[in-house]
Amino acid sequence: MTGQPWSILRPHRIRWIECDLYAHANHTAYLTLFEDLRIEHWEKLTGAPPGYDRPSPVVAQIDVRYLRAAVFRDEVMLGVRCASFRRTSFVHEYAMMKEGQDLCTARIVCVVARQDTGEKVPIWGELRETLLAEGAIEG
Amino acid sequence: MTGQPWSILRPHRIRWIECDLYAHANHTAYLTLFEDLRIEHWEKLTGAPPGYDRPSPVVAQIDVRYLRAAVFRDEVMLGVRCASFRRTSFVHEYAMMKEGQDLCTARIVCVVARQDTGEKVPIWGELRETLLAEGAIEG
Amino acid sequence: MTGQPWSILRPHRIRWIECDLYAHANHTAYLTLFEDLRIEHWEKLTGAPPGYDRPSPVVAQIDVRYLRAAVFRDEVMLGVRCASFRRTSFVHEYAMMKEGQDLCTARIVCVVARQDTGEKVPIWGELRETLLAEGAIEG
Amino acid sequence: MTGQPWSILRPHRIRWIECDLYAHANHTAYLTLFEDLRIEHWEKLTGAPPGYDRPSPVVAQIDVRYLRAAVFRDEVMLGVRCASFRRTSFVHEYAMMKEGQDLCTARIVCVVARQDTGEKVPIWGELRETLLAEGAIEG
Repeated sequence: MTGQPWSILRPHRIRWIECDLYAHANHTAYLTLFEDLRIEHWEKLTGAPPGYDRPSPVVAQIDVRYLRAAVFRDEVMLGVRCASFRRTSFVHEYAMMKEGQDLCTARIVCVVARQDTGEKVPIWGELRETLLAEGAIEG
Repeated sequence: MTGQPWSILRPHRIRWIECDLYAHANHTAYLTLFEDLRIEHWEKLTGAPPGYDRPSPVVAQIDVRYLRAAVFRDEVMLGVRCASFRRTSFVHEYAMMKEGQDLCTARIVCVVARQDTGEKVPIWGELRETLLAEGAIEG
Repeated sequence: MTGQPWSILRPHRIRWIECDLYAHANHTAYLTLFEDLRIEHWEKLTGAPPGYDRPSPVVAQIDVRYLRAAVFRDEVMLGVRCASFRRTSFVHEYAMMKEGQDLCTARIVCVVARQDTGEKVPIWGELRETLLAEGAIEG
Repeated sequence: MTGQPWSILRPHRIRWIECDLYAHANHTAYLTLFEDLRIEHWEKLTGAPPGYDRPSPVVAQIDVRYLRAAVFRDEVMLGVRCASFRRTSFVHEYAMMKEGQDLCTARIVCVVARQDTGEKVPIWGELRETLLAEGAIEG
């Protein structure tokens, strides 16, 4: 994990539906919460949420560490930031935190693509500038 | 991915609920299907499904690659095998395949622990023998 | 609930993901399992699964009774049948059963509509014949 | 639906995970959002969220009408109120609204029970007073 600031950081309270028999958040619940951040971040960067007919992030690889279990009713913080990017892809870092400690961290590689054509889309000039301004590293 | 045989290999048809706006299986849907295999494999190995008051696998780390999208009604195969194990943890490999090609592969590290005591549990003799017999590597 | 035979009846084992902190299937898990039956039944009746550009069932009203809780690893049976139909809608009955007893029953009203045009579609002649042959009542 | 004020009314933005191939919220997504309200309402009424070892609401029957589809990114309002109660049960009314119009309404019967003993629990005096003060009708 890099040390740059979070692009989005917001609170969440662990929901009933997110928990399993152990009263822990299921391992996929963290990823769905991170998905919300990814969509919000993309909308913030590009002015539009992901859609079928425009360049949108597609998850290609995820690497997730579950450090301490989040439990029902936990008040946690969720963060996302873009660590780096290349011609048609970027790397996001995510964390779920509680009282300053990481419960879960993730590194997710996304490809920018259009669903209607199936083609990868190079990161365009304005998007590149915004990512650099947020602290992302090119290359 | 190692080349050993799958411990469990079974068919699945992609469900409506697993798909998102793109008609693709959501990235978490693959993980929930793998979770089913993990539970079934654990029951096959130990004679009991995971439970609160007995040693059970807890997901500590996942590394997943999404190679080609699974879409609604796809007939796929799902496989799991234990690649290796150490004193209190093991590494599972998973795949979703279609017509012989990988759509998604995952490497998941689980710790064996009891939820009621919160303690890690060393892999016991009989479990060790079964894992070795399945082709898992120790260490 | 009517007494006609089930059009589809099949086994299911309650999954980890379907259960909540009480180790019971969440009340929505029953509905998602019924959704699978609805889609399969529609494909059986019409030769194609629901889709954006063809007449497909849309849920308009549900009435569900939870009689006894299904728990993790329960082996249950799931059934669906069409009880009745009108010009552009039909009523499905569903049940989850265990050892001959109902755990959950549902009555679901669906409208037949196309998503691409937003229009309701009258039940056509061949579909009407098939529904009557399955025991559904017209009107 | 009765005309009393909502006990809880709050905004929600339809999430990616809540939507299916039609870009509509899946019919179960509404129910999970209503579940959050039910839990929050119970905590507001009794001072504690539902739990295994204390009286908690258990869903016995749901009657839901889907009037207009909620779609991805819709800004909606969610409301819950207790319409009536009897010795060991109560009836909740829920709605998802957009721009003042109902998208979905539900009437849900809950039994008050303890999971650890399996017993129904009569609504106690203080809870009864609170429900009456919120506008719920007894009987």
